[in-house]
Amino acid sequence: MGRFSDCEESSLRKIKLIVAYDGTNYCGWQYQPNGITIEEVLNRHLSELLKEEIKVVGASRTDSGVHALGNVAVFCTKARMPADKISFALNTRLPEDIRIQDSCEVPEEFHPRFADTVKTYEYRILNRRFPDPTRRLYSYFYYYPLDVERMREAAAYLVGEHDFKSFCTHKPEVENTVRTVYSLDIEKEGDMICIRIRGNGFLYNMVRIIAGTLIRVGGGSIEPGDISEILEARDRRRAAETARPEGLTLVKIEYV
Amino acid sequence: MGRFSDCEESSLRKIKLIVAYDGTNYCGWQYQPNGITIEEVLNRHLSELLKEEIKVVGASRTDSGVHALGNVAVFCTKARMPADKISFALNTRLPEDIRIQDSCEVPEEFHPRFADTVKTYEYRILNRRFPDPTRRLYSYFYYYPLDVERMREAAAYLVGEHDFKSFCTHKPEVENTVRTVYSLDIEKEGDMICIRIRGNGFLYNMVRIIAGTLIRVGGGSIEPGDISEILEARDRRRAAETARPEGLTLVKIEYV
Repeated sequence: MGRFSDCEESSLRKIKLIVAYDGTNYCGWQYQPNGITIEEVLNRHLSELLKEEIKVVGASRTDSGVHALGNVAVFCTKARMPADKISFALNTRLPEDIRIQDSCEVPEEFHPRFADTVKTYEYRILNRRFPDPTRRLYSYFYYYPLDVERMREAAAYLVGEHDFKSFCTHKPEVENTVRTVYSLDIEKEGDMICIRIRGNGFLYNMVRIIAGTLIRVGGGSIEPGDISEILEARDRRRAAETARPEGLTLVKIEYV
Repeated sequence: MGRFSDCEESSLRKIKLIVAYDGTNYCGWQYQPNGITIEEVLNRHLSELLKEEIKVVGASRTDSGVHALGNVAVFCTKARMPADKISFALNTRLPEDIRIQDSCEVPEEFHPRFADTVKTYEYRILNRRFPDPTRRLYSYFYYYPLDVERMREAAAYLVGEHDFKSFCTHKPEVENTVRTVYSLDIEKEGDMICIRIRGNGFLYNMVRIIAGTLIRVGGGSIEPGDISEILEARDRRRAAETARPEGLTLVKIEYV
């Protein structure tokens, strides 16, 4: 754990934020020199609000363009503002594409990443003849008709504990690519297809590669039964392309 | 009718477009000198595509910030591009917040405004504790809990043929303020309240003033039964404030 996630001095409190954002105009969560990020904006406005230097630790480092309804950030502070008031006070300062949904005090030992969690993501596909400008920012437009039943059949192979090496972008520091998917449901409402996935953790790009692969299954170029072979291959080249970021939303993180 | 809505020469065809747009970044439909409008962008890209000066006539001059899924625009052209191909060709040129949903040839005498229509609008209210950044552009955020049953009770008074003078912003050229509302339904799904209204025509700001008034009813400061008195008063000051534009979408226009 870095120093900023610990509240070593006894006068410090640890605060947890539930953070929602429209990722369209951000280079993702994590600080980087070449573009504005959610982390950076939170640090700046929290530091101004609480009049001390604040550095948040996020639960999920969402990618550029990905949205969140319930990402989690934690920070330590000497400030005496009541924990539940921080959400309202911070929202008056934040740009309108970031909104805190809740703020509360948590025990000193709470760490947003090194705790057992169930994460829920949604990947939304707008499947119709023409793009809809009013839904373009929060879904992926796909022209060719998708067969949802085939997608469901394929999804069933991914539920459970598996080595998802074929379904992640390689990161040298990640050795263990085994994860558990608790559920993978595909709902269709009108022209919107929503892939909802719950798991104990997700590898880099895993949800977007699963979405890209399910789109191929729905379009007919991959068979549902091929999924078990793709899993067994433990080879990124066997799965389909990473689906675009605008379709993805981190819905919630449950600490279990 | 202006000259541009007539196809006086026999070599001209009249083309109808179904136009969807995200109104966030536009000063409404109608051309104006101080900001970019939907009409202006359509004229520019149609003229470039068809290599002649095109001027569209719109069915509904939506206000600044209002969205549409099915506005209608008509123009005359000498170009020989098949009518159903114009939608696809134009979409490749338009900015991504405007998308044509259909294009077809219509009889010379068709005029998008001087014809009998049923128009459907939706006004969406996000009624929850904190704003949701991923829905902020297409709904109006309202913090205080709204009682949907009261809103429905009030809505019933507005259905039918009435003088809606209390529910419009005055325009000197509009003498007849009698309109017929065919239906006014209020649905709640989770934290989103959707007011769906169908009618034979709507006065200036009428849907937004109805929405603003129903929000007051839902919040408790106007009684459902007061609506009939507000109608009878024929006085704009009796109804509530005009609700913000981002909640409003022109869903469709049916020619009957």
